[in-house]
Amino acid sequence: MAVAREGETESSQFAPTLQTTDPSNTKGFSQTLQGTFAESEKVQLSQFSQTLQTPVASHENERRRDWVLNVPEPPGLFSNLKTSFKKTVLRPLENKLQCLGKQPVLALISILNIIFPPLSWCKEYNVTKFKRDILAGLTLASLCIPQSIGYATLAKLDPQYGLYTSVIPPLIYAMMGTSREIAIGPVAVVSLLLSSMIQKLEDPIANPIAYRKFVLTVTFFAGTFQAAFGLLRLGFLVDFLSHAAIVGFMAGAACVIGLQQLKSLLGISNFTNKTDIISVLTSIGNSMHTLSPFSFIIGSSFLIFILSTKYYLARKYKKLFWLAAMAPLLSVILSTLVVFLTRADKYGVKIVKHITGGLNPSSVHELQFNSPHTAEAAKIGLIVALVALTEAIAVGRSFATMKGYRLDGNKEMLAMGVMNITGSLTSCYVATGSFSRTAVNFNAGCETAVSNIVMAVTVLISLEFFTRLLYFTPVAILASIILSALPGLINISEAKYIWKVDKMDFLACAAAFLGVLFVSVETGLLLAVGISFAKIILNSIQPGTEKLGRLPESDLFGDVEQYPIATKTPGALIVRVRSALLCFANANFIRGRILNLAGEEHDEGAIENCDQDRVQLVILDMSNLLNIDTSSIAALEELQNELESNGMQLALANPRWHVIHKLKLANFLKKIEERVYLTIGEAIEACLISKNMLPI
Amino acid sequence: MAVAREGETESSQFAPTLQTTDPSNTKGFSQTLQGTFAESEKVQLSQFSQTLQTPVASHENERRRDWVLNVPEPPGLFSNLKTSFKKTVLRPLENKLQCLGKQPVLALISILNIIFPPLSWCKEYNVTKFKRDILAGLTLASLCIPQSIGYATLAKLDPQYGLYTSVIPPLIYAMMGTSREIAIGPVAVVSLLLSSMIQKLEDPIANPIAYRKFVLTVTFFAGTFQAAFGLLRLGFLVDFLSHAAIVGFMAGAACVIGLQQLKSLLGISNFTNKTDIISVLTSIGNSMHTLSPFSFIIGSSFLIFILSTKYYLARKYKKLFWLAAMAPLLSVILSTLVVFLTRADKYGVKIVKHITGGLNPSSVHELQFNSPHTAEAAKIGLIVALVALTEAIAVGRSFATMKGYRLDGNKEMLAMGVMNITGSLTSCYVATGSFSRTAVNFNAGCETAVSNIVMAVTVLISLEFFTRLLYFTPVAILASIILSALPGLINISEAKYIWKVDKMDFLACAAAFLGVLFVSVETGLLLAVGISFAKIILNSIQPGTEKLGRLPESDLFGDVEQYPIATKTPGALIVRVRSALLCFANANFIRGRILNLAGEEHDEGAIENCDQDRVQLVILDMSNLLNIDTSSIAALEELQNELESNGMQLALANPRWHVIHKLKLANFLKKIEERVYLTIGEAIEACLISKNMLPI
Repeated sequence: MAVAREGETESSQFAPTLQTTDPSNTKGFSQTLQGTFAESEKVQLSQFSQTLQTPVASHENERRRDWVLNVPEPPGLFSNLKTSFKKTVLRPLENKLQCLGKQPVLALISILNIIFPPLSWCKEYNVTKFKRDILAGLTLASLCIPQSIGYATLAKLDPQYGLYTSVIPPLIYAMMGTSREIAIGPVAVVSLLLSSMIQKLEDPIANPIAYRKFVLTVTFFAGTFQAAFGLLRLGFLVDFLSHAAIVGFMAGAACVIGLQQLKSLLGISNFTNKTDIISVLTSIGNSMHTLSPFSFIIGSSFLIFILSTKYYLARKYKKLFWLAAMAPLLSVILSTLVVFLTRADKYGVKIVKHITGGLNPSSVHELQFNSPHTAEAAKIGLIVALVALTEAIAVGRSFATMKGYRLDGNKEMLAMGVMNITGSLTSCYVATGSFSRTAVNFNAGCETAVSNIVMAVTVLISLEFFTRLLYFTPVAILASIILSALPGLINISEAKYIWKVDKMDFLACAAAFLGVLFVSVETGLLLAVGISFAKIILNSIQPGTEKLGRLPESDLFGDVEQYPIATKTPGALIVRVRSALLCFANANFIRGRILNLAGEEHDEGAIENCDQDRVQLVILDMSNLLNIDTSSIAALEELQNELESNGMQLALANPRWHVIHKLKLANFLKKIEERVYLTIGEAIEACLISKNMLPI
Repeated sequence: MAVAREGETESSQFAPTLQTTDPSNTKGFSQTLQGTFAESEKVQLSQFSQTLQTPVASHENERRRDWVLNVPEPPGLFSNLKTSFKKTVLRPLENKLQCLGKQPVLALISILNIIFPPLSWCKEYNVTKFKRDILAGLTLASLCIPQSIGYATLAKLDPQYGLYTSVIPPLIYAMMGTSREIAIGPVAVVSLLLSSMIQKLEDPIANPIAYRKFVLTVTFFAGTFQAAFGLLRLGFLVDFLSHAAIVGFMAGAACVIGLQQLKSLLGISNFTNKTDIISVLTSIGNSMHTLSPFSFIIGSSFLIFILSTKYYLARKYKKLFWLAAMAPLLSVILSTLVVFLTRADKYGVKIVKHITGGLNPSSVHELQFNSPHTAEAAKIGLIVALVALTEAIAVGRSFATMKGYRLDGNKEMLAMGVMNITGSLTSCYVATGSFSRTAVNFNAGCETAVSNIVMAVTVLISLEFFTRLLYFTPVAILASIILSALPGLINISEAKYIWKVDKMDFLACAAAFLGVLFVSVETGLLLAVGISFAKIILNSIQPGTEKLGRLPESDLFGDVEQYPIATKTPGALIVRVRSALLCFANANFIRGRILNLAGEEHDEGAIENCDQDRVQLVILDMSNLLNIDTSSIAALEELQNELESNGMQLALANPRWHVIHKLKLANFLKKIEERVYLTIGEAIEACLISKNMLPI
């Protein structure tokens, strides 16, 4: 705070005697004194400064209080909504249209750039980059083909649907997406989510065609929701699953997926339809007599091979990461050869058998909008859309930050939406960005989304020519490939970090994990979202208060618990509400708290027989109160009355915009107007120093 | 802010030349200069002060940053819960027990005082006060008897149950309650709530005994819940119905009650069981042929009489208020005489007929805890308990504030609980504090709860001797009495006030009103609570940001929209989040907002070709952020990276206790430690002035 003000200028340059002509500067001045003079001189000075305190109201402070009291009217609820709609939807559209009128060619290019973001890096694309993209794309394809077949079986679809999903969606995304690393295709969690939710309505074994139609319809809805979110700029929706909830949910889903793979790995029949750990383990226990030892030996030995390349070789020798990426394909080839040569399928080893080859067939006629389950399909579509987007955007964003460019959430949503709508018309189920394959793509040195195109073309060629070769592939090997991808979904160090930083966040994380593992995938999701929002409510209305004290040699006031060096101001109780809302749910509790605090301090002063130290003034620091409601205004009025009847006064410091406006509308301001201040310091000065109550 | 600090003392007394020895004071000093010198001298001074800015880190600011960075560890979730349990439950108990050991007599008296608060005013009670209480009690009884009979019929019970409820509960409350004005007995809203919820499970006409047993069981549960809330000190629970919701709910309930009275007033049969306005009006329309004109004439003429005494005579001649209070009883007497003399009951006027007289019979054996509906009874009991408490505490508190004493919410709950439990054992249904009768009690000059005792005794005498006289009382007159009490429940001016102050609050109010009126009483309640909590969530996570500017001649920074006089600091963008929580639901949106703002300002600087004005520093004022979670820490890290890659820096100012602690745990503090400051001013000084970037 400036000691002197503009306008007084030259004559008062730092000469203490001259300061006496201006009573308004008493506080700043006396503080300066306090800081400057040694203890021994303080007594004399305090007498000196007390003579300065005239009852004339401080002119400067009056002016500052004017700033607080006469604020412009804040925008109302409706005008706020209007402005934000204009800003996010109308203005960009208008700009584009105006531009189109004036410079149609440039505008067209900019619109094309918006719809097809890859155009922005197209010009700089060259042969070197293309070579790297080809390499990355081929690596990706070698991992993608076995994974896609595995995930299709997890989604309870025929294997070729996984491959279809690795063709069309990546092609569309490569044209419309803003991420350069993300690898598009079927993923484990979405496959699990689809099968676990849909098989309650349509049996995939008894009625596979109806089941497939349902999956495609859900895919169409999911794509439509995603595109709509993107167009309506609702990118924030993916944030409604908190980071902690995602960590818990992913780990739970990984465990559930792993449990599902035990069926193929052990080669048992009679498996349960439920996904929770208890049902699955019971079911496995009951079916152990159908176990196929050859399946288990093949599956587990290749699982060890894949895991050891991934977690031992690739980590030890960074250059061998391609081996880890190729290991699944190698395992498929080797195991297929082994089965073909030994004809192990005759000894109980289940094999993939016939995979329909050829291009993606059209599935326009398979979408069903008149079935009794359409509403259910839309609901499942919404959930799947959000989960798929959450995974894709989390993956894409982390790699974009690593490479130093920014992902546009809304464009991503639109791209995902269009690719899934197109997918649903060409026999694909829900595709999204895969955690594990994106990492492989990045490590393989991809430059742009061209690697996705290379991958899609490779998968397409395989579909056309090589599906017959997969006839003897053992099912157990697909289980091994899925199992080997799961450890990447379980992030124990992140869970530990969450526990360390925020216990409530960890609760959401643990609830999501346990919910998925012990009840069902949807329950886990619901629990996580529920706890996350309950936490927001609890945090917002927690009825805590904190006492503030003055920080040494400053006009700043801080929580006495946070800043143990802060000192109490005798005669005043300074409190702040530990919440941003003073509302019906906490106002009365806080009123009681403040009253108790004031009563305690008041009585303390009385016991010490030190009348000057008795609390005479309760200052409510409102700087962090963003809003109040009518209940809390009533509580404030009551608080003021109760304090007054106990011989104390209430003062308000630094009210925010909406708060001061509402106090004004409610006519409460009139009752307390002379005790509303810009800062706590000014409140103390005006109410105590000016009445000669505060010892300096 | 003090210009000089302790420890430098004498030698540097206000002499500007000496200040140059201490580079740490540059800012305070240069601001002082700014304020003190006239414009013409500024140029010279700014050169002067720039020479002061040595690269040596400011010592004083270092010390302040230390305060921010090295805070004690805040209490965790569990220790917080433990402390608050100790504070609110264990400590008071311990104190009592300790006291009991040392001074058993005094302690016993204090415990008795706690259980029976009236003991505190017992000593000062005298004959004058007793006379006034008798007068008030008699006035109260004259209003209470007809109202109780009316409310019993509203609750679909026999008339005597209303009278029973006006005997035992007021006696218990008089011994245990802390309010001195409240009038206890059956009230309209609770009667409606009971009948509307219970008649879905048990038909009051087909099976009146089972219905009555159910009502008594619900009363027992309601009392138990209330007593438990009081013992567990859960007084804050009554706050979960916001003021606005209560206004809407009461008005809706009044309309619904009024509609129900049309049956008796019009003397029609075939009335619907539903309470919503559409069903009731349809039902009345269909039954108009059964209308009894005599009923209507008697009822409406006495209604006009009661209303005119209440709203005309009593307002014009204050002393005639007793006439308004007696008018219902007068109407009952007169109308009974008229019917008795004309034998109008033979011409279609429905009469009360036999009312069982005598003392409250025991109803211990009527409580049912083994019926299949017990869980439902407990649920209804909980809802009724909360609504009854809300009404009683709202009434009691407003009169206590008027008389200048404080109501203890927890003791009130305990008193209400005990009185309803006792009531349920003595044939009473749920009693609570009545709006209308409490006002009459206050106006009649009651001094203490003795007026309740007088009333209860009077009702008891009437039950014993006068019930036979009510045989010919027309039912229509009871409807008139209830109708005349309803306008007091509809508070239009309060609704207008809520609309003026808070539009979202009004939404909760209107939803409660319309929900009760058009759907059902429970729906209205549910809507009101739901909207109130949705509002809290919206307010807490609204992803708004506001730019801050420096207030003239101070080191304070305020929202530039709230304080139009605030000025921007060239080179720095100062933002504050318009929310108390930076969490998963808003962190990414806010990150994007800040990034956009910074980008805009950065580009503006570039356009104006004024390199010094380009934003180099983004200061995030965290003073109102109460908490963050792991998602938001990740968003902050991302924000920092993105700003850095655009040539800007992120600085944090004034983080709160839990925030700085979590940033530390998350290791984010290490990355940004050198840019965390106590105030915005220090951040600007350290980052810009020290680098000669800010023009002085």
